[in-house]
Amino acid sequence: MTIAAAHAARVPLRRSTPEQRADWLEAVASALDAAAEELIGIAAGETHLPLPRLTGELKRTTFQARLFAQGLRSGELLPVRMDEADPEWGMGPRPDLRRTVVPIGPVLVFAASNFPFAFSVFGGDTVSALAAGCPVVVKAHPGHPLLSRRTAGVVVESLAEAGAPDGAFALIEGVEASLEALRDPRIKAVGFTGSTKGGRALFDIAAARPEPIPFYGELGSVNPVVVTPAAWAERGAAVAEGWVGSLTLGAGQFCTNPGVVLVPDPDGFLKAVDLPVPGRMLTTGLEEGFAAAVAEVGAHQGVRVAAESPANDQGVRSSVLNVAAADVIADPAVLDVEMFGPAGLVVGYTSQDELLEVLRRVPGQLTGTIQGHSSGDDAVAVEVADVLADTAGRIVWNDWPTGVTVSGAQQHGGPYPASTAPASTSVGLAAISRWQRPVAFQGAPDSVLPPELRNR
Amino acid sequence: MTIAAAHAARVPLRRSTPEQRADWLEAVASALDAAAEELIGIAAGETHLPLPRLTGELKRTTFQARLFAQGLRSGELLPVRMDEADPEWGMGPRPDLRRTVVPIGPVLVFAASNFPFAFSVFGGDTVSALAAGCPVVVKAHPGHPLLSRRTAGVVVESLAEAGAPDGAFALIEGVEASLEALRDPRIKAVGFTGSTKGGRALFDIAAARPEPIPFYGELGSVNPVVVTPAAWAERGAAVAEGWVGSLTLGAGQFCTNPGVVLVPDPDGFLKAVDLPVPGRMLTTGLEEGFAAAVAEVGAHQGVRVAAESPANDQGVRSSVLNVAAADVIADPAVLDVEMFGPAGLVVGYTSQDELLEVLRRVPGQLTGTIQGHSSGDDAVAVEVADVLADTAGRIVWNDWPTGVTVSGAQQHGGPYPASTAPASTSVGLAAISRWQRPVAFQGAPDSVLPPELRNR
Repeated sequence: MTIAAAHAARVPLRRSTPEQRADWLEAVASALDAAAEELIGIAAGETHLPLPRLTGELKRTTFQARLFAQGLRSGELLPVRMDEADPEWGMGPRPDLRRTVVPIGPVLVFAASNFPFAFSVFGGDTVSALAAGCPVVVKAHPGHPLLSRRTAGVVVESLAEAGAPDGAFALIEGVEASLEALRDPRIKAVGFTGSTKGGRALFDIAAARPEPIPFYGELGSVNPVVVTPAAWAERGAAVAEGWVGSLTLGAGQFCTNPGVVLVPDPDGFLKAVDLPVPGRMLTTGLEEGFAAAVAEVGAHQGVRVAAESPANDQGVRSSVLNVAAADVIADPAVLDVEMFGPAGLVVGYTSQDELLEVLRRVPGQLTGTIQGHSSGDDAVAVEVADVLADTAGRIVWNDWPTGVTVSGAQQHGGPYPASTAPASTSVGLAAISRWQRPVAFQGAPDSVLPPELRNR
Repeated sequence: MTIAAAHAARVPLRRSTPEQRADWLEAVASALDAAAEELIGIAAGETHLPLPRLTGELKRTTFQARLFAQGLRSGELLPVRMDEADPEWGMGPRPDLRRTVVPIGPVLVFAASNFPFAFSVFGGDTVSALAAGCPVVVKAHPGHPLLSRRTAGVVVESLAEAGAPDGAFALIEGVEASLEALRDPRIKAVGFTGSTKGGRALFDIAAARPEPIPFYGELGSVNPVVVTPAAWAERGAAVAEGWVGSLTLGAGQFCTNPGVVLVPDPDGFLKAVDLPVPGRMLTTGLEEGFAAAVAEVGAHQGVRVAAESPANDQGVRSSVLNVAAADVIADPAVLDVEMFGPAGLVVGYTSQDELLEVLRRVPGQLTGTIQGHSSGDDAVAVEVADVLADTAGRIVWNDWPTGVTVSGAQQHGGPYPASTAPASTSVGLAAISRWQRPVAFQGAPDSVLPPELRNR
C-alpha cells in the first residue's frame, strides 16, 4: 500500500512547481527544528552519540533541506537547455529542441546507521529526491527505530500541512519489506548508505530486476592520507595529532574516516600518536564488525598492532596498526578492508616510488588526503594528487576528510567500492541529479511544454 | 594487449588538455572526410544502404566529432564549480571546494549495425569518450567488418599523427574478445547500441563484475505516435503519409522508428496508408529477426495484418498491423515487441481515456510523438504529453522521431528498456557526461589543482 501510494503520488509530484517543493522542504525543516529537543533526546538514547554531535547533525540536516529549497527557488536545480531551430546546422536543418528534467519516479532510500539525522529518514537522499519531485520510501535503519518513527511522523505531518500530495513520503521497516520494495516495479531508483557487503547485495537485486534501476550506493572507503616528507619535516607531530583526531572522531564511525596513513617515518609518527579511549559505538553489531575487521587487517602480511588505547565500557579500544609499504605492495588486499571504527593503519614508505606504488593499489575511495608542505611547493604532493585523481572523489589538502560540508561543489562518491555510481554524489546540491531524468521536447508549442521551457 | 595499451593510455589522456583532445577529434574528422569515397564504397558493399544515406551519415559523423571539439574548446564540456571558503556557512565553516571532472577510464564501445559510421567505430560513443579523455576500445559490429577495419585504420593513423597517446583507440572483433574486454578490470565503463536482448546480456555481465561498471546501453523502443482527433480532422491523410515515410525510412532500421501509432479512426487511417517496397535490410540476421517480430506481434490478442507491400528481392515486405485499443489494454505485452524493420502497429482508440490507458502501458521509450492540431490548441495533446513525460526521453511535436539531430539539447535515451541508464543520453553533447567522474578538491593550492581549478 505504501508503494501504491508513492506510485500514485508521482504524477502530482511531477506536476508540482519547484517553488512548491521548496515550501515543502522548508516546512519539514522548520518542524524538525521545532521538535529538536524531543528528537535529540530519542536519538541520544538509541545511538549513544553525544548531545553536541546530535545537535550539530540535526542542524546540518535542516540546513541541507533549506539549501535544496534555495536551489529550487533559484532555478539552479532545474537545468534546462534550449537549442532554437537552425536551418543551417552542419549536419542538416535542426529542429527546435528544449531539454528539461523530470523526476525519475518513486525512490527507495536505505537509511544509514551512523548519521541518524543527516543520512537517515530526512537525510540527503530523501531531501534531494523530494527536491527532484520523486516520492520517497525510506527503509528505517534498525539502529534507531524510535527516532526513525518519530522523525517520519514529523515529516508526514508537516508535508501534509504544507500541501504535499499524499504518498510523497513513507517509512517502512524490516528487511523483508525493504526487499519487497526493492523488487517492486513501481520503484524507479534506490539510494543507499552503508557497508560494501550490504550495499552490493542490494545493488545485485536492483540490477537483476526485469527492469534494472539505478542504484546509488555510498559504500566503503579507507580514505588514504599521504604525509609527504616535506610536511613531515615541517609539522610531523601536529599531523599525527590531527590524524588521530579525525580517526577517532565519533568513535571512527564515519565513511570518510582516514583509515590508512602513508608516512615517511613510521617510528617517529607512531611515537607522536596518542590514542584516546573511544566513545561508545552505535550498536553491538558495529562493535563486532569492527573487532573482526581489525583482526582481518592484522592477519595480512607484515601487519602488527602498534598502539592501543585502554578499553571503553563496552571493551572497545582505539588502535593503530603498522605495516611497511613493501608488505602492502606484496599483499595489497589489506587496503580493501575498512575498519569501521577507531582504528587506522600506518604504512611506512621508504621512497616516492614506493609511496605511489601503494597508492596505485588502493581501490576506489570517497576521499584521499594530502598532508603536504604548507607553502604548496611540494613535488611529492603534486605526484600524489595526480594518482589520487584516478581513485578518489574528493582530494583534501592539509585538512581531514571527516566533516563533509554540504554545498554546490561537494563530491561524495568515487569509483567502486566507494560507490556503485562513480559519476554521482550523495552529498551536496549535485545529489539531485541522481533522481532527475532528462526529457527533450522537439518543436513543441507552449501549450504542451512544461513551464520552464515555454517562450518568455 | 589492447586493453593493456588502453590502460596505459589513461594517464596521458587524463593529463591532456581539452584543446589537445579537440585537435585529435578534428584530425580524425578531416582524415575520415578525406577518405570518404573509399569508406562509403566499402560501406555500400557491406550494408546495402544507398549512397546518399551513407554520404549523409559520414557527414553527420564528422560533424559530430567537430561539435565535441568545439565544446571542448569553449569549455562547455568541462563543467567546474567553485565554492570559496565561507566561515559563515549555515552548517559550520565551509572550506574552499572546487569540483571538476576526470575521465572515468578505458571505455568499451559496442558498435551498432544500423549506423555503420555514426554509431560505429568513430560514432557518438567513441567521440564523446575520447572528448572526455577516455581511451576507447571498440568492438566492431560483424555486419560491416571491412568498413570497421578501414575506419579504425584511418582513426589510428590520424590520432597518431595528431599526437594522441598510443592506446587511445583500438578496434577488437569477435564475441569472445569483447566478453573478455567486458570482464577486464581495467575497463571502467561501457557504451552499447543494439537490441534489448543483446544489451541486457552484456549489462548483466557488467553488473556482476567484482567491480561493477556503468553500462550505457541504448536498446529497444517502439516509439509510439499519437494522432489526436483534432490532428486527424485537420490533416489525417498527410499524417498517415508522414508516418509511413518515417516508418519505412532506411527499411525501418532505426531505433527511433515509429512502430506504434494510436489513431482515432483506424479504418480511415489504414485507407490512407500506401506502403512502399522496402529497401534491402542490413543483414540476413536482421531480416529473420524482423520476420519473427512481426509474427510475434501478429500472435497477440486481436492483432491482424492490415496491409502489406510487395516483397523486395530478399522477400521482405513493408507491413502494417492493426489492433483495437481495448485489446492492447487486455494484452499490453504487444507493446513490448520491437519490429526492427519496415512494420508498424496501428492502434485504434475510441476515447481519450482509452488512448491514455494504452499510453500508460507503454514501457520506457526513446521517443514519443504527438501529431496534434497545428494551432497548438489541443487538449488531448496536452494530456498525452503529460503521460509521455513519464515514459519517453524525447517528445516530438508534429514531426517524426527518425532523424536525430546532434546538438546540445538533444536527449536520446529513456527508461528501460529504451536504455539501461535513463539519466543519460547517447546522442548530443551531454553524452560526454557518461564518461566523466566528478572530483572535488578541498583547500588545495594551485600547484596541486588541475589547470581549470586554479586561481586566475
